[in-house]
Amino acid sequence: MAPNNLSCLLYGPGEARFEERPVPEITDPHEIVIRISYVGVCGSDVHFWKHGGVTRKVSEESPLVMGHEASGIVHSVGPDVTSVKPGDRVAIEPGFPCRRCRRCKAGRYNLCSKMQFAADPPRTHGTLARFFKIPEDFAYKIPDSLSLEEAVLVEPLSVAVHGVRLADVRPGQDVLVLGSGTIGLLVAATAKAFGAGNIFVVDINEKKLEFAKCFVDCATFVPAADSTPQENASRLQEEFHLDDGIDVVLECTGVESSAQTGIHASAPGGVFVQIGMGKPEQTLPMGAMCEKETVVKTSFRYAPGDYDIALGLLGSGRVSVKALISSVVPFESATEAWEKTMRGEGIKNLIRGVQD
Amino acid sequence: MAPNNLSCLLYGPGEARFEERPVPEITDPHEIVIRISYVGVCGSDVHFWKHGGVTRKVSEESPLVMGHEASGIVHSVGPDVTSVKPGDRVAIEPGFPCRRCRRCKAGRYNLCSKMQFAADPPRTHGTLARFFKIPEDFAYKIPDSLSLEEAVLVEPLSVAVHGVRLADVRPGQDVLVLGSGTIGLLVAATAKAFGAGNIFVVDINEKKLEFAKCFVDCATFVPAADSTPQENASRLQEEFHLDDGIDVVLECTGVESSAQTGIHASAPGGVFVQIGMGKPEQTLPMGAMCEKETVVKTSFRYAPGDYDIALGLLGSGRVSVKALISSVVPFESATEAWEKTMRGEGIKNLIRGVQD
Amino acid sequence: MAPNNLSCLLYGPGEARFEERPVPEITDPHEIVIRISYVGVCGSDVHFWKHGGVTRKVSEESPLVMGHEASGIVHSVGPDVTSVKPGDRVAIEPGFPCRRCRRCKAGRYNLCSKMQFAADPPRTHGTLARFFKIPEDFAYKIPDSLSLEEAVLVEPLSVAVHGVRLADVRPGQDVLVLGSGTIGLLVAATAKAFGAGNIFVVDINEKKLEFAKCFVDCATFVPAADSTPQENASRLQEEFHLDDGIDVVLECTGVESSAQTGIHASAPGGVFVQIGMGKPEQTLPMGAMCEKETVVKTSFRYAPGDYDIALGLLGSGRVSVKALISSVVPFESATEAWEKTMRGEGIKNLIRGVQD
Amino acid sequence: MAPNNLSCLLYGPGEARFEERPVPEITDPHEIVIRISYVGVCGSDVHFWKHGGVTRKVSEESPLVMGHEASGIVHSVGPDVTSVKPGDRVAIEPGFPCRRCRRCKAGRYNLCSKMQFAADPPRTHGTLARFFKIPEDFAYKIPDSLSLEEAVLVEPLSVAVHGVRLADVRPGQDVLVLGSGTIGLLVAATAKAFGAGNIFVVDINEKKLEFAKCFVDCATFVPAADSTPQENASRLQEEFHLDDGIDVVLECTGVESSAQTGIHASAPGGVFVQIGMGKPEQTLPMGAMCEKETVVKTSFRYAPGDYDIALGLLGSGRVSVKALISSVVPFESATEAWEKTMRGEGIKNLIRGVQD
Repeated sequence: MAPNNLSCLLYGPGEARFEERPVPEITDPHEIVIRISYVGVCGSDVHFWKHGGVTRKVSEESPLVMGHEASGIVHSVGPDVTSVKPGDRVAIEPGFPCRRCRRCKAGRYNLCSKMQFAADPPRTHGTLARFFKIPEDFAYKIPDSLSLEEAVLVEPLSVAVHGVRLADVRPGQDVLVLGSGTIGLLVAATAKAFGAGNIFVVDINEKKLEFAKCFVDCATFVPAADSTPQENASRLQEEFHLDDGIDVVLECTGVESSAQTGIHASAPGGVFVQIGMGKPEQTLPMGAMCEKETVVKTSFRYAPGDYDIALGLLGSGRVSVKALISSVVPFESATEAWEKTMRGEGIKNLIRGVQD
Repeated sequence: MAPNNLSCLLYGPGEARFEERPVPEITDPHEIVIRISYVGVCGSDVHFWKHGGVTRKVSEESPLVMGHEASGIVHSVGPDVTSVKPGDRVAIEPGFPCRRCRRCKAGRYNLCSKMQFAADPPRTHGTLARFFKIPEDFAYKIPDSLSLEEAVLVEPLSVAVHGVRLADVRPGQDVLVLGSGTIGLLVAATAKAFGAGNIFVVDINEKKLEFAKCFVDCATFVPAADSTPQENASRLQEEFHLDDGIDVVLECTGVESSAQTGIHASAPGGVFVQIGMGKPEQTLPMGAMCEKETVVKTSFRYAPGDYDIALGLLGSGRVSVKALISSVVPFESATEAWEKTMRGEGIKNLIRGVQD
Repeated sequence: MAPNNLSCLLYGPGEARFEERPVPEITDPHEIVIRISYVGVCGSDVHFWKHGGVTRKVSEESPLVMGHEASGIVHSVGPDVTSVKPGDRVAIEPGFPCRRCRRCKAGRYNLCSKMQFAADPPRTHGTLARFFKIPEDFAYKIPDSLSLEEAVLVEPLSVAVHGVRLADVRPGQDVLVLGSGTIGLLVAATAKAFGAGNIFVVDINEKKLEFAKCFVDCATFVPAADSTPQENASRLQEEFHLDDGIDVVLECTGVESSAQTGIHASAPGGVFVQIGMGKPEQTLPMGAMCEKETVVKTSFRYAPGDYDIALGLLGSGRVSVKALISSVVPFESATEAWEKTMRGEGIKNLIRGVQD
Repeated sequence: MAPNNLSCLLYGPGEARFEERPVPEITDPHEIVIRISYVGVCGSDVHFWKHGGVTRKVSEESPLVMGHEASGIVHSVGPDVTSVKPGDRVAIEPGFPCRRCRRCKAGRYNLCSKMQFAADPPRTHGTLARFFKIPEDFAYKIPDSLSLEEAVLVEPLSVAVHGVRLADVRPGQDVLVLGSGTIGLLVAATAKAFGAGNIFVVDINEKKLEFAKCFVDCATFVPAADSTPQENASRLQEEFHLDDGIDVVLECTGVESSAQTGIHASAPGGVFVQIGMGKPEQTLPMGAMCEKETVVKTSFRYAPGDYDIALGLLGSGRVSVKALISSVVPFESATEAWEKTMRGEGIKNLIRGVQD
């Protein structure tokens, strides 16, 4: 194990260090090592940079290599690998389940209790390194039409695909998307690609909504800060002549009042999917839910098939993510990308992999 | 329309009057008139008796015939009726949908916005009368093995069936039932009949749990009043060696802390169904829900097929409701049955139909 | 009932007569009378023209007004009608279920045993008349962007939508469509609109396949007449690099060897939907089906929601049917349209409604 | 690898030899070695004994250890094994999927193209040996109430569970079971445990039907040899007053006319599941299927969760298999068990594991 695997580790809030770590060695015949090309920054990275973690935190004794949105080029492969070969350009699915538990075998590995997810404290290191080792079936070859920069976005697009699949969006159904950040935008575009009828995107930031309108064919709505969720829902329904409410609501902000607005705007028999993460305790309008038989689902990461669908959407041009890439900084400036994202600059900021 | 249809009307909180009303006339060829045999009392009747209604209320100007759980004998039938004939003993499904809207046609008539449900203010009178008119397909012939008293219970049993079907209880699955009132008991028995594995019934009333254990093969649990929902859930899991949580949780109390306990006790990928009605706003542990991809469903009345299944459960003896019938009062003492139920006496108190 | 409702009746094979019949009178408050604008010709009309019916036949004693694909303008409405008004341009769903049976209430009215379907012997007359009476909820207002000629195609498009919904086509899935007649073309276009990945259309008629390629983004395949279904399936898989088979197969010809080819070409776990009607007894490769856990579904007419989705596809421009309309003949020349269709001329031939 | 793993190998039709083979060595940390207690004989074993295989056959050059229904005691475990320990009594699931392909990850490992199934030519040896090595998660601890003899039956019971789950049998539904061999009996019992209403078992062997009536609460029917499938279906419907047909049909014989009878007897909207294996090409009544929208499913082995459910049914006493065990022969007399089964003697004949 030669130590030339430059990696960016977090030791605590605001405390990142670049260190040489051993190059990963292939021990299982189905493993591959990937030379990382780009790593994306998402809200959780920023949360780590600010607070050192969410529930479980990094520490001086237990630092962690950051990063979980990533693309790269296959560097070496184990003896039994057949699906990729060195040189292949790939998107990386960054969580590796046990494959043996009840949930893995039932097709829901995102709920595997032994999941090893990139950059998950205390022990599972992430992708912000020169090399990253994964099982071959978590590397997805990308089509020629897709750049390695864009391939980073397969991860958040898979989050969107997972939520839209949970909602079981059907052709012609109206869809309400709450939030127009990266996930909200990708959710709206995915719902459209799944055949949704009218799409309504809600955000308090009008500039973001302007972008949303360019990104996907949708109508937009700004809730009034001084109105109740129920009032905002009523105004939304009136404005768009949705007397009966909306079949599918996809919540991508994690904000409690946004969830409440969404449920009030939903149609009898509608489905509401919580994709954004927010406060651990949230008050929901249970009375309204019971009369409408609302189904509230929660969406966690991605399940088998989501990456394939995401790549299909990108490959066929039904969804394009190029417009979401706002900046690319060199590997050594990773913290700048986190700072930028923290300040709300850009949509998706990327970190380039280690250059020779 | 001869006025010999003695009926019990509510004019306001605590203000019931017995009046002669016209006997209903058959105007649609598929209608039938039923001579009411028994009417059951449920929590909502008590709420009406106390408060005059829930959101919409009765008034001096707009009194309402009470009652929606009922059995009877077919008195007369319209010219096109083929499924029943005068003299048939029937259980009554007391809500009549429009049959033409999108939801009726899609198989979800319980969400019909034009639903005419018995004893629903301001205009839809209930079953607490000598005669009651319904469409033929909302009368269900009962087997000889079932008494007309028991047939009243088909209504709450259908509520239970609806919730258990929404939960999609599968053979072998562990099921948690929160609350051991009439609905909780029937939900537990229905889940068992659907093949559930272990059933755990939770209540703060130990006496009720004693009854539950006699009524259905189950284990019971009393949450500690001074523990948090999360603590109660943990203790429940420990006590019954449910490390992974419970697949299916059926909430039958409407109490916020009970819902919270149920969600905390649920397994990753589990489903939680709110059957009980309670506070219009309730706080849920959204953080825990998101990590587990909990599905929260809400259950409203009953849908096509629920009455058939309920009658099948009773007819085959998989569920028996005899033990739930606590008292029968004469028609003229209807308010006594409400008072009894309000005081928590008995499980299901019945009102006998008008005697000649 | 003034007798100025000119109608085209079939009295036997090749025996059509134009007769004045009474204008329909509204008897149910939710009924409407439609002035027919256009009637389409489909394969079953041709079968009637040739053989006088399928299982049940018309006769000199029991002639039948023909026609079931139709558009028109609302002429008069019953007192309780709220969804349309005289003058509205509508597509007609031509089958009226009982609304009361188990299947109607469960959301599957296409399986109603009391269904009254247009032009169904012995008694249910069709749409090839000046006026046609239907319940209001079986008239669908069409958008301004759609002509009354195109609105006739909502019927076959709903057949396609029904089949594609049964197949549960999901974004990215490869789809095989057997047959490129009207239904095959509409099925391919609908599958695409539902998000299908690659679409493969199979026909023995190369000219039809040329049209298919213009109509929808697809690859095409001509099976060899002297090859077995298994050989044709293998060649199809090789040609398009589908080692694993195809997820979804939609059979739109009714031809036995076509069904066999489709099943052999399907992937393990795949679904095959029989949309075309053909021989009453057909041999299927049950051994191959068992090893692959193939699901074979059969599709019958359309169910609740199909017309809405079809109109949504047309209104949003995801599917266009203009190119399928081959000819329009006057009402009095209805038999010419049948003859044309029998000779295989054109795709969809229309009959104009009675002109004043 | 000490060679004291006495095994029974098939070299060709009727050509079995007992040989010492090496004791399997644990190479993967999650593997375990099981000391085989009992091996069951099923129809496919008999087919091998008669013909040397089905499509792929054994040969002098490529003999195969037989057996795939088996129970045993854990002998040794790999270093990472946590779910079982030496001495545990287990039922064995005898097929080991790749865990990495699309179908494995989607929860359908029975369709894995790399499946290694016990006693599958040319290379995958079976359980009819002193020792057998499997991954830990394919060993299922059995409850104390279950004998190791009965545990052999978990395999065919899982076949039954898989078919009944595919049929999605719901409480109260009538179920038709075609065939009353081991699988038919277990299917009927499983359907009952899933809440089925009336169960009808069909067989041409009246003695077997007598047994079926003792084994599960059911009605029975003997089809007439000189009647058509449609006639037999009609007579069945008349005899049991099933005007509308039967919701769920489970075919467990593999015989073409039996499948035809089942489809004719099914209700509109019904589901038919082919569980038995028979002729590779079978003629089905496609016309009747299309009018009824029949769904034909095919059932292959068992999927994730089936073994758990089967053990749950046995553990809770909802299904008992004791009455199915007809004989136990010593290991060295394995061929006698095959002969017995070939002659139709007994229901399930077992072979005892190697004795010291």
